[in-house]
Amino acid sequence: MISNAEASFQSKVDLNCDFGEGYGIYTFGQDEKLLQYVTSVNIACGFHAGDPKAIRQAVASAAEAGVAIGAHPGLPDRLGFGRREMAVEPDDVYDDTLYQIGALGAFVRAAGTELRHLKPHGALYHMAGRSEAIADAIIRAAKAYDPKLRIYGQHGSLLLRAAELHGLRAVSEVFADRTYMADGTLTPRILPGAMIQSRNAALDQALRMVIQGVVLTPSGDVTAVQADTICLHGDGPHAASFAAAIHDGLTGAGIRLERPE
Amino acid sequence: MISNAEASFQSKVDLNCDFGEGYGIYTFGQDEKLLQYVTSVNIACGFHAGDPKAIRQAVASAAEAGVAIGAHPGLPDRLGFGRREMAVEPDDVYDDTLYQIGALGAFVRAAGTELRHLKPHGALYHMAGRSEAIADAIIRAAKAYDPKLRIYGQHGSLLLRAAELHGLRAVSEVFADRTYMADGTLTPRILPGAMIQSRNAALDQALRMVIQGVVLTPSGDVTAVQADTICLHGDGPHAASFAAAIHDGLTGAGIRLERPE
Amino acid sequence: MISNAEASFQSKVDLNCDFGEGYGIYTFGQDEKLLQYVTSVNIACGFHAGDPKAIRQAVASAAEAGVAIGAHPGLPDRLGFGRREMAVEPDDVYDDTLYQIGALGAFVRAAGTELRHLKPHGALYHMAGRSEAIADAIIRAAKAYDPKLRIYGQHGSLLLRAAELHGLRAVSEVFADRTYMADGTLTPRILPGAMIQSRNAALDQALRMVIQGVVLTPSGDVTAVQADTICLHGDGPHAASFAAAIHDGLTGAGIRLERPE
Amino acid sequence: MISNAEASFQSKVDLNCDFGEGYGIYTFGQDEKLLQYVTSVNIACGFHAGDPKAIRQAVASAAEAGVAIGAHPGLPDRLGFGRREMAVEPDDVYDDTLYQIGALGAFVRAAGTELRHLKPHGALYHMAGRSEAIADAIIRAAKAYDPKLRIYGQHGSLLLRAAELHGLRAVSEVFADRTYMADGTLTPRILPGAMIQSRNAALDQALRMVIQGVVLTPSGDVTAVQADTICLHGDGPHAASFAAAIHDGLTGAGIRLERPE
Repeated sequence: MISNAEASFQSKVDLNCDFGEGYGIYTFGQDEKLLQYVTSVNIACGFHAGDPKAIRQAVASAAEAGVAIGAHPGLPDRLGFGRREMAVEPDDVYDDTLYQIGALGAFVRAAGTELRHLKPHGALYHMAGRSEAIADAIIRAAKAYDPKLRIYGQHGSLLLRAAELHGLRAVSEVFADRTYMADGTLTPRILPGAMIQSRNAALDQALRMVIQGVVLTPSGDVTAVQADTICLHGDGPHAASFAAAIHDGLTGAGIRLERPE
Repeated sequence: MISNAEASFQSKVDLNCDFGEGYGIYTFGQDEKLLQYVTSVNIACGFHAGDPKAIRQAVASAAEAGVAIGAHPGLPDRLGFGRREMAVEPDDVYDDTLYQIGALGAFVRAAGTELRHLKPHGALYHMAGRSEAIADAIIRAAKAYDPKLRIYGQHGSLLLRAAELHGLRAVSEVFADRTYMADGTLTPRILPGAMIQSRNAALDQALRMVIQGVVLTPSGDVTAVQADTICLHGDGPHAASFAAAIHDGLTGAGIRLERPE
Repeated sequence: MISNAEASFQSKVDLNCDFGEGYGIYTFGQDEKLLQYVTSVNIACGFHAGDPKAIRQAVASAAEAGVAIGAHPGLPDRLGFGRREMAVEPDDVYDDTLYQIGALGAFVRAAGTELRHLKPHGALYHMAGRSEAIADAIIRAAKAYDPKLRIYGQHGSLLLRAAELHGLRAVSEVFADRTYMADGTLTPRILPGAMIQSRNAALDQALRMVIQGVVLTPSGDVTAVQADTICLHGDGPHAASFAAAIHDGLTGAGIRLERPE
Repeated sequence: MISNAEASFQSKVDLNCDFGEGYGIYTFGQDEKLLQYVTSVNIACGFHAGDPKAIRQAVASAAEAGVAIGAHPGLPDRLGFGRREMAVEPDDVYDDTLYQIGALGAFVRAAGTELRHLKPHGALYHMAGRSEAIADAIIRAAKAYDPKLRIYGQHGSLLLRAAELHGLRAVSEVFADRTYMADGTLTPRILPGAMIQSRNAALDQALRMVIQGVVLTPSGDVTAVQADTICLHGDGPHAASFAAAIHDGLTGAGIRLERPE
């Protein structure tokens, strides 16, 4: 465990989770449980998940809890929950993203609150991380809607670079429960050791990323990461206990949990 | 034909048509042809028809032509083109409408222009005309998005009454190619004589509605109607020629064609 | 409690439940728990719920459990779970039903088992119960696919009458947890006393319907019902315990639980 | 032009086109015009295009015209018309394909006719041509439904090889309006000269493929192709005239046009 005394690098971080990912009669994840631990939520916009009613309810819950509200646009693939990559044209990504931001934004406006950020979902998140054209399309859509939108993207991704190129604020996201490779990218899920199964190990990694700005790779390297926000997963049987552990561990170490400026 | 000299009642009217009702590879109607005749378009928002790309293109065409842009939300029934009534809850109508306005509104904002009105589509239009709860839900959604939105609804409908109750501008819509009954409602389509097949008869009715504020029923009655906007249909083989006839006939009679204030 | 000695009227009954109503990542109901109590399942076909993968898995589970497999077609309204009535044309109902039967039937065939029955879902079930044209459309679709399909429909409904007119076997369905009115129809849900909340009362009603062929109305009348199959609900917190109570109670009273012939 | 005297290699061929690709109110292609020229149709099954009503109508037209009816399953992407590749799992392809075959098959059965073949659509066709796992999944689905189904696939593709491995009849498809490379594969569309724009050149290629079993590449090579069926495109302004030219040219050269055995 890293002691509070070492907290020289950074003294605050945002915790975000996906939110409002039900559809019709279906629910998904543990929205209400996670809400107490996060400072930002990414609300599904109706393409990979979510629907108008789910959006209204998610916005109301998030507004009441006082967390930052962001758009969580996905690929037009509800059957696959937006997790399957598709050969979409960048112009289609622009259109689909703008549509989803606008739809969600209307509920945020109706609730008298503010749409603060955007984080692409699933396959779109990964495609935007490594394709300049897809990243650019998403950022253009965000900028067309509101140039003040913050962009949550993976540490080191092309999405964050595109955000900066267009003058939008880039918020670098890291994962407490995934291991990193020496180049600062995530270990692919198909490789052994990609997931961090232990709550303590995940908390250790979170503390190290926030306080020291580094991550230890399984092979023993130390790699720099920018930890503006940590992603908490809302699905899986241990989601809530992991979220609690990281929330409490960070707070206990004197880290302030707050939305990005 | 009514002469220009009689034009004492009203000297201007709006012409509107539905717009952007394709989907994916599919097209529908004659958007580009009708655009030259209308002063307002109602753009499909992705539920009964339309998709993000179609919306972007429709907004661009409409903005370039300088016509007023409105939202045209429909029931969530793409297979039925939003023409089948559904037992939707008013709260669902509120949510679905707000979602659709917001999605379209984002493209309007991105195009640097203005969303000026809302007209429900198909079955939702008819349901809103006779159900207080549905009408109220639509108006609440419009108001939550922008209280300056004008509401296009059928002459005498509960939708227009709800708009007025909520302080939104009501724009009374009439039809040149449908006959009316003595109470000011449309002759149901299943009855003989519901449709006006002749271009000249349609133009006569349009002129009479605009200039004199009345309509002649098949049974010979004279009924008052408020003709703020006339609906031009974009589908059917004669859509463009009907539109041209009404546009030219009204202009020739000295009526100004312009968007509602 | 009715004693076994009274079992003069009928000595067997089918228990059915809806099945396979998830979608993509979403699950719904308690399929696996209920499977041990029922003798028939109605598998969602992809319109109101279900998808190809869910269908394959549902068919495999049902085949392994040895229960009768039926099609459970619904309205094309996934967002509303097929619970909202829609103004569909009878020809559309024919087409939509045949499509859904065929899709499910392919998986049943691939599993080397048999599609035995059809029960419409939700709003379609209710519409088919009181509209001759809708009932006829469903039966024509079932017959076109396989005239040996049994039709599960509400006791006294037009759906069962249409089945008989077309020469298909009608299986009369009753509810253990709903009260009936003197005319043999269900007490509408909006009325007080429509639902039977007590497990014992539900079991009493089930026994009385099966053994004596009657139901007691809240107002004290005794009405004849034909109880070929009893519907067990799979959703709700008490679904599994109700199902267990009825299963065990009927079995304990000497009633054989078996699929319709 | 190749003279009839040279017709030593092959004296017959099948002409196929996609069919029933509308959706709801939308139409696509020129089904009725092409029907007079083809001997096989591939009917959309509701995923990339088509719906239950469109399927019923397409089956009725095809049955009346006496052409062979095949299933034309696509990816679950109606917005993209099944033309965008998706990272689908082979098991999902199996499920989605079996679902679509079954749905179409029910209408074919109801029409008292026979489902004779399967041809994947768009992106699925191309994926199945070069991925063993996708090809295998499609063939397993076809075989599970009916081992007598013929498989239409691109000349030289892995789909045809998988069909043969599973004991299904492989029908090798060629294109009259696309150029080929020396290895027998199509020139990618993004390269210049991929499309044959001239009707005469397309007819020449069709004759050469059928009669001589070869194709001339733009670079002057002669490559063997197996021309069991020629694909006629139904969309585009010249679709009908191309189809007529190939139909009439082949017939005039003494080639019999008939469905695969």
